[in-house]
Amino acid sequence: MALLIRKATAADAPQILAFIHALAEYEKAPDAVEATVADLVREGFGPTPRFHCLLAESDDQPAGYALYFHTYSTWTGHPGLHLEDLFVLPEFRGKGVGKALIAAVAARARAEDCRRLEWAVLDWNQPAIDFYRSLGGEFLDEWRTVRLTGPALETLATRQTAEEKQ
Amino acid sequence: MALLIRKATAADAPQILAFIHALAEYEKAPDAVEATVADLVREGFGPTPRFHCLLAESDDQPAGYALYFHTYSTWTGHPGLHLEDLFVLPEFRGKGVGKALIAAVAARARAEDCRRLEWAVLDWNQPAIDFYRSLGGEFLDEWRTVRLTGPALETLATRQTAEEKQ
Repeated sequence: MALLIRKATAADAPQILAFIHALAEYEKAPDAVEATVADLVREGFGPTPRFHCLLAESDDQPAGYALYFHTYSTWTGHPGLHLEDLFVLPEFRGKGVGKALIAAVAARARAEDCRRLEWAVLDWNQPAIDFYRSLGGEFLDEWRTVRLTGPALETLATRQTAEEKQ
Repeated sequence: MALLIRKATAADAPQILAFIHALAEYEKAPDAVEATVADLVREGFGPTPRFHCLLAESDDQPAGYALYFHTYSTWTGHPGLHLEDLFVLPEFRGKGVGKALIAAVAARARAEDCRRLEWAVLDWNQPAIDFYRSLGGEFLDEWRTVRLTGPALETLATRQTAEEKQ
């Protein structure tokens, strides 16, 4: 098996979207994906890319992807990387593709002097949890993630606008 | 009380660092901050800012800050904002300063068509948890955060380099 890890380009957006759908299905949320090819092209390959993507190809066949963006830690003073998606197609699993992808992201972190690589894992995904533990990952279980979206986000944003106008 | 929320500039970096130290103390990690004023200036106020910062001033006195950066969701297809730090000095608490800061960040999210505002809260910080719930925040307790840093990150990054060379 010849494995290649390469940076995605705008031309890969349809393949990336196909991977995103496959990952959502794996995460038991097959209808969660609203993203379009146009969204990916606009946000990932414009003048201010909001994400970066690496593709894994096995004997020229798409095998998986890693998608990440920059973070910032006020404790380290340095940027970090957040691995938003990591996915390998079922037929390519168990061959080191996932590890090669995450290692390539770690190498990017190192090249850019990013001090942390972080990501989230579903608490029922024991194979992934075991894999991440084997890499030396630390689980930040004291922290809970909070999300504001839709009407709640809109209400809060509008409140601010109202007060600014006073 | 006259409350002003304004965007921080590089000249505010010493004040931001003082807030970062105060927040780390509140989070029971007083020795965790390695960041310097130079780090903040370089990463926050250069050509590719890795974070953005809003300052709250009450009658011209520094009262608190919010520090955030952009994220990307492959489900929504849009960027989001991650609120890394939100802090109000003890003497200004209970006066709506924290809510004004987070509302200002929500307004930024709305202005930039960011579909999510996310942050993390320590599981023992019940006042903050109650506050975030009152805003309509959703707690993503099915997700665990994993972090790779130091030697573990270095080892993974080096592995990749070794394989690339083959």
